[in-house]
Amino acid sequence: MASDVQKVKPSRYIDGEFWELKDRLRKEIEDNDLFRQRFDITVDELRELTLKRAKFLLSLPQIRQQFADQLANKKGFISSSQAIGEVFSSVDMSVGVKMGVMAWLFGGAVMNLGSEQHVVKWFQPLKDLEFTGMFAMSEKGHGSNVRNILTEAHYDSNTQEFIITTPCEDAQKFYIGNALQGNYAAVFAQLIIGQESKGPHCFIVPIRDAEGNLYPGVSVTDMGLKEGLNGVDNGILHFTGARIPRENLLNRFADVSAEGVYTTSIPSHNARFNAMLAALVATRLALSNQATASMKVALEIAIRYAFKRVQFGPGEGPEVPIMHYQTHQLRLMPYLATCLAVTFANRYAADMLDDDFFHKRDLVDNRSIQALISGLKAYATWENLQCLQTCRECCGGMGYMSENRIAGLKQDCDVFVTFEGDNTVLYQQVVKELLAVFGQKLGDNRVLQTLSVLQQETAEYIKTSMFAVGTESVISASGMMKALSFREGRMLRKLAGRMLKKVGDGEEGFQAWNSCLHHTQALAKCHIQRVCLELFVAAVDRCPHQQEKDILNKFCLLYGTHALYTDRAWYLEHGYYTPANTKELRQQLLSLCAETCKHALFIVEAFHTPRISVHAPIAGVPSTKAPWAYYPEPGSENPLVAIDVDAIRRTTPLQSKL
Amino acid sequence: MASDVQKVKPSRYIDGEFWELKDRLRKEIEDNDLFRQRFDITVDELRELTLKRAKFLLSLPQIRQQFADQLANKKGFISSSQAIGEVFSSVDMSVGVKMGVMAWLFGGAVMNLGSEQHVVKWFQPLKDLEFTGMFAMSEKGHGSNVRNILTEAHYDSNTQEFIITTPCEDAQKFYIGNALQGNYAAVFAQLIIGQESKGPHCFIVPIRDAEGNLYPGVSVTDMGLKEGLNGVDNGILHFTGARIPRENLLNRFADVSAEGVYTTSIPSHNARFNAMLAALVATRLALSNQATASMKVALEIAIRYAFKRVQFGPGEGPEVPIMHYQTHQLRLMPYLATCLAVTFANRYAADMLDDDFFHKRDLVDNRSIQALISGLKAYATWENLQCLQTCRECCGGMGYMSENRIAGLKQDCDVFVTFEGDNTVLYQQVVKELLAVFGQKLGDNRVLQTLSVLQQETAEYIKTSMFAVGTESVISASGMMKALSFREGRMLRKLAGRMLKKVGDGEEGFQAWNSCLHHTQALAKCHIQRVCLELFVAAVDRCPHQQEKDILNKFCLLYGTHALYTDRAWYLEHGYYTPANTKELRQQLLSLCAETCKHALFIVEAFHTPRISVHAPIAGVPSTKAPWAYYPEPGSENPLVAIDVDAIRRTTPLQSKL
Repeated sequence: MASDVQKVKPSRYIDGEFWELKDRLRKEIEDNDLFRQRFDITVDELRELTLKRAKFLLSLPQIRQQFADQLANKKGFISSSQAIGEVFSSVDMSVGVKMGVMAWLFGGAVMNLGSEQHVVKWFQPLKDLEFTGMFAMSEKGHGSNVRNILTEAHYDSNTQEFIITTPCEDAQKFYIGNALQGNYAAVFAQLIIGQESKGPHCFIVPIRDAEGNLYPGVSVTDMGLKEGLNGVDNGILHFTGARIPRENLLNRFADVSAEGVYTTSIPSHNARFNAMLAALVATRLALSNQATASMKVALEIAIRYAFKRVQFGPGEGPEVPIMHYQTHQLRLMPYLATCLAVTFANRYAADMLDDDFFHKRDLVDNRSIQALISGLKAYATWENLQCLQTCRECCGGMGYMSENRIAGLKQDCDVFVTFEGDNTVLYQQVVKELLAVFGQKLGDNRVLQTLSVLQQETAEYIKTSMFAVGTESVISASGMMKALSFREGRMLRKLAGRMLKKVGDGEEGFQAWNSCLHHTQALAKCHIQRVCLELFVAAVDRCPHQQEKDILNKFCLLYGTHALYTDRAWYLEHGYYTPANTKELRQQLLSLCAETCKHALFIVEAFHTPRISVHAPIAGVPSTKAPWAYYPEPGSENPLVAIDVDAIRRTTPLQSKL
Repeated sequence: MASDVQKVKPSRYIDGEFWELKDRLRKEIEDNDLFRQRFDITVDELRELTLKRAKFLLSLPQIRQQFADQLANKKGFISSSQAIGEVFSSVDMSVGVKMGVMAWLFGGAVMNLGSEQHVVKWFQPLKDLEFTGMFAMSEKGHGSNVRNILTEAHYDSNTQEFIITTPCEDAQKFYIGNALQGNYAAVFAQLIIGQESKGPHCFIVPIRDAEGNLYPGVSVTDMGLKEGLNGVDNGILHFTGARIPRENLLNRFADVSAEGVYTTSIPSHNARFNAMLAALVATRLALSNQATASMKVALEIAIRYAFKRVQFGPGEGPEVPIMHYQTHQLRLMPYLATCLAVTFANRYAADMLDDDFFHKRDLVDNRSIQALISGLKAYATWENLQCLQTCRECCGGMGYMSENRIAGLKQDCDVFVTFEGDNTVLYQQVVKELLAVFGQKLGDNRVLQTLSVLQQETAEYIKTSMFAVGTESVISASGMMKALSFREGRMLRKLAGRMLKKVGDGEEGFQAWNSCLHHTQALAKCHIQRVCLELFVAAVDRCPHQQEKDILNKFCLLYGTHALYTDRAWYLEHGYYTPANTKELRQQLLSLCAETCKHALFIVEAFHTPRISVHAPIAGVPSTKAPWAYYPEPGSENPLVAIDVDAIRRTTPLQSKL
């Protein structure tokens, strides 16, 4: 039966709504020598190559159309940009990040924080590659706490200019992508009029002209070699009184008149800055999407290899493919399930954003989308790193060779968990959004109401644990969803109660929050897993092909089972599950891993990753650079049946090159 | 009080018995330009540099003495080699691995598998750097299952030679370190006399002469770029009838006469090969030691940075060092505790090995040392990778810069978890040793006795959980040891029972074992954690300085608490802990992290890692290559008290270079 299913060709459901666009882009890269994986070049060559790749991709008609759609606020441009980002990041993570910086981060700042004339001046030329941009928010002293950046923009009403200054070492703009090649930067700085600071605002600062000469008052330092993403030129921007016209302030939320009068639609510094950050949230979702693209490539390599590579076997019989081992299934299958879960969650988040953008809603008001995207970015990028590490280890020494790609993906994706919002900080943001929604529900008299909610909960929880959790509830998707929702709700109310009590007892707010950080991290993860499971269930429901639906359903169950099993201690501590329940969860985890593993090749095929992106010889893509690393197909219909590969290989004549 | 302790200088207790030897070696590298960290050179240059470094180190009088001690079987040479390995690996992991291959892996094969004349011929010249060796066991088709390697050594009695042949692609010797530069290889091959295979044996095969010319019948392929360890030249050895004299068979366990008569002291193929592998176990311990060296460097960087780097703070007050955050403490302190635990366990294992070597005991008979070393290698190398990843993330984007070293350590150490025994396979080996000891205790009538043990256990377990586990037992070291021992014992007996039942029910042995792999991995980890905790407690006991002892005791408690907390689900499932107990464990974990964090700088100082090895500008070691990455001391006596670093930095004049 397993081999029957194996023969079913996957539909385009997993590849998603924009599969035709993706296919056209894949065709552009598949046989294009420009996108051949390179492991043998210097950092300078890699940067040049990345720029060349980025320019080629930006010149494609599909990408020009994408710019046009965004300009026209055509519904769905976020979703299509996710599809594009996936294809580009799969073949080269550096080019994905570089393009993200030079066009979408810079362009996104212009589009979302600027006005009509800013768009005409700085967004439209991007699509014609007249120049490229950079995004300068982080400073040496402030990465997470961006509200307290130190760069200054003094308004000079005599010349109607802003003077951009780096007043101290900690104010240097750090880690700026495209710093060595870009022309304009969207610079965040404290806007100062007279002696008064108006808080952080975003300014367009010309960095270098078309010939590459730096403008006066600007200096750039190369930050050199990094663990990965070396195709991206990161540098330090340092300003010594760079003068820019008054019109270069992106003025959607606030403006300065020629005479130096400050006006804003949002009087509070904090609220204004929050609105600015919220408007940029789409770029954060892009990272979750890139992390998912990386998981797809690495899982395909590790899974294809696991069906080819044999080691040990029963008695004197033939050796078995390593995918046969319980440990191997347990290591890989939950990540394949997570990869699918995150794929559907990314798509949902993009749809929601598209809807908000289309209706020109202020994103800062949509707390659930803010929580979802912050949470998804943290969750997907962390899961991706663990998945990559596991894939590397599952490929043994072969996984360590650069030719087999996983090592490079690890290096490139590592920084995803700390940039564009450090994950631990993002998880706190998720919880703050959840608490805000919870607080809105409670209304004014928070303390009493929270305590009453906590009391009510005891009843609910006894009821749930004692009567509702039977065998069916443990193993069904609805039972799992209930369990995750229960945990999320309870942790949230508990946290609210703890915070209220601490602050009520006179503890300083910052310290009180700090003493709950362990709690907040667990809550944020639980929230995002609950949402991912819900969206996965909905995606299974919508799948129009019965056999594919059945397969996806197994992965969906595995996703939920794995999440609950990993955190079973909490459920046992709270009496929600009995030891018999968690034993059942373990059994279900083991059997679902064994079961889904039969469909693993079906799923990786459904990703439709081009061979130029998979690249790895151990996954069956030959390489002229490392012919020795190639692993042929074992030639079996049902890959989980032990086959005498050794006997086949023993009779394979050696290649003459050796 | 915290600052009082901070002022105490650490003794040499943590640095260990051989601290003077280590200090002498540190002095040799500290101001030696040869050991400057390099991130800017090609693979070829890196290989040459590594060879140069290795030759320099091998020529030091301390290292020549080490060879002499090993030759003389002087008691303690394993322990001193661990001390040496730690210093060398700290400054350059490639040089640690390269020297390990060229001298100790090759030399170890000669010493432990050869006879007197082999030692004279191939070990003694190593110390005079007359040539270097390599160790050729793994093949393309067999990494873990080395017993089934396919390389052949046919005996030709006419010429009294062995003919070494690679019969197929899968038989190629893969991943051989020093393959591009070494002269001799210790090659494992199936010994064949006439048509009969005698199983794997080890042969010394000349690869290239002093001028670098390959000998006839030998070819070498460069394996190119890897994720890390690029200073080590890994290659593929391929033999087409290379002829070597009969005397090149390392004949401690078996020999072939001139006429082709095979004699052996161990008739069983399997038992003989096990004895050979057991004799090589010291090199496996070396990896655990190298992983520990890496943890020390990375933790020092992340911890020093965490006390300097500030971000956010209460209200409008100054920002606080990131070490202040509960999450930061929770991420770093358990690894610092683990690093200490593994340090003491490595030392104990080396002492035991030294004792066995000194008394010329067959290591294969010492099952507990085999289990300890296999387990330690797997445990320490996995903990190291997680620790490095955490340290990288705790340093944010700065941790991603090559200049700050952690990225390189991650890349270099990644392969440790899959080479010299894949960790998942080693954990199985641990459990097999534990089961063998358990079986010996039970004697002949295993089935009945196991079942009776399982019944007895029910009583013991009820007694332990219901009466013995009070608050004191949860939080004391003895209570923790008891809990870990209880879990280890119960999981072992349960596994024995499961296996007996499965096999009794007619399940094939290999399949039965496969279906218990999840169980075996958890058991092996529990075993090694129990041993580590025991050895940590003993090491605290022995510490002669009261204040240092008190500090170490806190880390020891943290080590145990963290291990138990992480696996609290098991204890809850088995009714050993109540939810109240695990809540207490959580409280203890949080408070011990906060408490140990005050002593973190004391501990990293006690590692005595030279500044050339720490290197990272973010840890306060300036670099001319990346002056911008330097973080000055915040200038506070008590680093956990919030200080207005921003104010200090704002007044720091900018360096003229910018």
